[in-house]
Amino acid sequence: MLRTHTCGELRLENVGKEVTLAGWVQRLRDKGGMLWIDLRDRYGLTQLSFEEGITPADVLVQARSLGREFVLRVTGNVIERESKNDKMPTGEVEIKVTNLEILNPAKLPPFMIEDDTDGGDDLRMKYRYLDLRRAPVRRNLELRHRMMRETRNYLDNLSFIEVETPVLIKSTPEGARDFVVPSRMNPGEFYALPQSPQTFKQLLMVSGFDKYYQIVKCFRDEDLRADRQPEFTQIDCEMAFVTQEDILNTFEGFIRHLFEKVKGVTIDQLPRMTYADAARYYGSDKPDTRFEMRFVELNALVKDKGFKVFDDAELVVGINAKGAASYTRKQLDELTDFVRRPQIGATGLVYARVNEDGSIKSSVDKFYSSEDLQEWGKAFNAEPGDLLLILAGGTDKTRKALNELRLEMGERLGLRDKNTFSPLWVVDFPLLEWDEEAQRYHAMHHPFTSPKPEDLELVDSRPGDIRANAYDMVINGVEVGGGSIRIHDRTLQEQMFTLLGFSKEEAENQFGFLMNAFEYGAPPHGGIAFGFDRLCSLFGGSDSIRDYIAFPKNNSGRDVMIDAPSSIADAQLNELHIRLKG
Amino acid sequence: MLRTHTCGELRLENVGKEVTLAGWVQRLRDKGGMLWIDLRDRYGLTQLSFEEGITPADVLVQARSLGREFVLRVTGNVIERESKNDKMPTGEVEIKVTNLEILNPAKLPPFMIEDDTDGGDDLRMKYRYLDLRRAPVRRNLELRHRMMRETRNYLDNLSFIEVETPVLIKSTPEGARDFVVPSRMNPGEFYALPQSPQTFKQLLMVSGFDKYYQIVKCFRDEDLRADRQPEFTQIDCEMAFVTQEDILNTFEGFIRHLFEKVKGVTIDQLPRMTYADAARYYGSDKPDTRFEMRFVELNALVKDKGFKVFDDAELVVGINAKGAASYTRKQLDELTDFVRRPQIGATGLVYARVNEDGSIKSSVDKFYSSEDLQEWGKAFNAEPGDLLLILAGGTDKTRKALNELRLEMGERLGLRDKNTFSPLWVVDFPLLEWDEEAQRYHAMHHPFTSPKPEDLELVDSRPGDIRANAYDMVINGVEVGGGSIRIHDRTLQEQMFTLLGFSKEEAENQFGFLMNAFEYGAPPHGGIAFGFDRLCSLFGGSDSIRDYIAFPKNNSGRDVMIDAPSSIADAQLNELHIRLKG
Repeated sequence: MLRTHTCGELRLENVGKEVTLAGWVQRLRDKGGMLWIDLRDRYGLTQLSFEEGITPADVLVQARSLGREFVLRVTGNVIERESKNDKMPTGEVEIKVTNLEILNPAKLPPFMIEDDTDGGDDLRMKYRYLDLRRAPVRRNLELRHRMMRETRNYLDNLSFIEVETPVLIKSTPEGARDFVVPSRMNPGEFYALPQSPQTFKQLLMVSGFDKYYQIVKCFRDEDLRADRQPEFTQIDCEMAFVTQEDILNTFEGFIRHLFEKVKGVTIDQLPRMTYADAARYYGSDKPDTRFEMRFVELNALVKDKGFKVFDDAELVVGINAKGAASYTRKQLDELTDFVRRPQIGATGLVYARVNEDGSIKSSVDKFYSSEDLQEWGKAFNAEPGDLLLILAGGTDKTRKALNELRLEMGERLGLRDKNTFSPLWVVDFPLLEWDEEAQRYHAMHHPFTSPKPEDLELVDSRPGDIRANAYDMVINGVEVGGGSIRIHDRTLQEQMFTLLGFSKEEAENQFGFLMNAFEYGAPPHGGIAFGFDRLCSLFGGSDSIRDYIAFPKNNSGRDVMIDAPSSIADAQLNELHIRLKG
Repeated sequence: MLRTHTCGELRLENVGKEVTLAGWVQRLRDKGGMLWIDLRDRYGLTQLSFEEGITPADVLVQARSLGREFVLRVTGNVIERESKNDKMPTGEVEIKVTNLEILNPAKLPPFMIEDDTDGGDDLRMKYRYLDLRRAPVRRNLELRHRMMRETRNYLDNLSFIEVETPVLIKSTPEGARDFVVPSRMNPGEFYALPQSPQTFKQLLMVSGFDKYYQIVKCFRDEDLRADRQPEFTQIDCEMAFVTQEDILNTFEGFIRHLFEKVKGVTIDQLPRMTYADAARYYGSDKPDTRFEMRFVELNALVKDKGFKVFDDAELVVGINAKGAASYTRKQLDELTDFVRRPQIGATGLVYARVNEDGSIKSSVDKFYSSEDLQEWGKAFNAEPGDLLLILAGGTDKTRKALNELRLEMGERLGLRDKNTFSPLWVVDFPLLEWDEEAQRYHAMHHPFTSPKPEDLELVDSRPGDIRANAYDMVINGVEVGGGSIRIHDRTLQEQMFTLLGFSKEEAENQFGFLMNAFEYGAPPHGGIAFGFDRLCSLFGGSDSIRDYIAFPKNNSGRDVMIDAPSSIADAQLNELHIRLKG
């Protein structure tokens, strides 16, 4: 190796040793005949010192010619520092340099390689290899590696076997849009990149692999948002001979293991909430349960008092923002503006303050007596100092809007601490969801999800009410994983496809291989997949998955560093039997 | 879980226990009022027993209705077997079944689910999910998983960090043909799937990641052979601040770790052989060193004795097939036919037998005296019973042909035992290789490979003689891995592209991002990549990588199970801004 130690390694006990280090120039200080350089590598920083009259003259001259980010190899003696720096693990020592070799000079970087950089997003994406030098970004990828390792440790220990499934597969119309790959050897035909290894992992269960996992790249050609990437990583898992209960227990153990090993955080048993309750009490299938502030429905209390907004509403529902009674007019106006934003879409906000003396003052005092308001207060378990915030309208829309308001209030009241983790299971998802536009049902999870046997009788009468053996793991309002018990019976799978509007031929064409497999002895099975990028960002305390991906793409799906995608040669198009449209 | 134990778990100490098992019917025997079923899962086989008059009548009726591969759940008591089967770990016990549930019936499989199956290749590919049920195939994937785990253990222990690099990258003309992916959001542009993460891992070194690895899918759109797949898996590694020596030591340690942990085989230090010696003594850059039989060059001994074939030849070279002097005329004719095959291309084979009395009898006695032949014998260290096999012709072609003959003789003499492992490093590869057809140099490894500094003076005079800091790991005649120290200097990298016939603009267009990165402080670095599929097949004792891939493609790049690639809808083509060439 070009070094004897790393830049994070030397301590007081190494004093007196001759060492060789290699790394990057982080910082230079030249003062009163002394020159100090902080040398950086992945493992830390070590201070180098040069002194006029002591350091060999040529070494000193060379040292004074250095710039930030030069790559050096230095040899010298470890000495105890005069002024120690207790913020650096190596802060008690420095290297008195006797020899210096410039391994590579560096141009001035386009932004500062510091924890807080002056580089904008675009610049940092273009020079991602420099951004990756910054300690916070490097630590994100180290966290990701640790999470990957602990994931494998947990699953390997339980006899899960990691099996690689193919990347070049078959395009199917169900779900999101596929990326496709023209085949040179099969003119006019295309592979697709997998949106998930769903059918393959089910086939592995049919094959008897019993417990499968894979940390695997998946692909979706969707319009991008900040937290979406065209390629993303899943922890993909499947088990045979299990019930939903077994999967929940196994992967509850998984997330507790991860928190314990990676964050040193002990997590209690995961609560379970039905989809119906999540909608009713949080207005969301991924409730942030770091704070309570559950929805309180007021229909029974507020109707027929002459307030038309409430009288006409399908649902009147509110939250108790504890301790926010002191909110000013301006703050309340802000909240009203917030719920009126087009993407939230409420028409207005009713509020009621609980005063110190227990009296309640609302924005609709015109319609409700103080006795009425006391009844409201009881419904909310309100105490002096509380602020009740109430919305009204159609059930689904109002719940969604109140969910947004609840999260906003949680934020404002400091209830959404990034270092608090509140995981739970949301269970009993509906099997189907109605698509107004297409006038047909979609699979809420995917077409392989098993309905609850006791709900099967609803197939003809109320298919929308059939519940599935499907479950999501939610942490702090983020869906980190989801899965289901699968169908393992050909007839039921055919029924499912029919329900989803597939013709017999389409179903056979796309998924015949799976339905055939079910006829050769398919065991009951189910599984789950975790969004690994999102799980990493959650563990790291960030909202953006990009910070946890080494080389992410921008919102147009471009890698601006390597400049991809790009045009290709006509000869290449010819070989692939395609032309550009145009 | 639907079971209390697996089918591989029960032993004598479990006798008396009530257990529930789940699995597949492997075998049924119905005889004299008794019925036995072997129930199979991933973990093993357990014998179930049913007895007329004792087993509940309905259970017995149901049991008699079962067929092979039905999926069952049974409950019963563990009893000691009367006739024990010491070939099965569970062979001392059986389950006296009291309850039976058919979880799924099964159609008769198209081939036998046994260690030796009657299914042909095509049928087994189509029903891969059934082929994967067979124990030898399952064990292959279990081996793969173990190798993956031990790879990670070794590298994690040395502070390597696994970083995922992108799958949607940029197409480059160098190397093999790319698979490409049309971009919907960037009309007329394409991503490419990576042939390796080469440039990304180098950028990670520029970023200071120091030690990187990834077990990663790579893609090449090449015509396929038995041991090639369009998608394959690499163990991809890179280190900064290292010399070639450091890489060789690190990955020599890796392969020894793998052999030790996975095969229980201790491997000595790896010998190193120069590319030149490998050519001279084995006629191959991937010599099978499980056996000696090194080439002996005879030019000095055989010329000017009137034998025109030898006189005209650039090279006369042979091997000593020890103990094969008893080969019959017929066997020798076979060998002659072997070397004359078009793909080998020798014009003939000269042989010489060493008799028991030490005399030597050759096929060219007409031209050489017995004293001449004794000189040959000395050159070969020949002993009574040896057979000398000699080829003559152009140097490269003759070496290649003799390599084939050497391997054939190794095979015939039983010297290529699949359970013997002989790894070595081949080093000092040429930097460039001349392409007759294109009349230009190609990079032998890739354009990022560093020349040996002491050979740089040959750039203008004899570029073909420049040696690279490149190395391959070879085991049993198979190249399992290869790598190099990389260029980390912009000027040298530009020179390299010029040497390879890139215009300045092409180089900038394709690899500008990398050369730019070299200007911001790139450390010396190098790495290696192992072909993981091939490594698995080598460890498993098979010649075919397909046996170690869960869902392989056939020689036309088709997955015949899911029927991919396939045609896609016109709407999809439109969205991607392409048309079929028609």
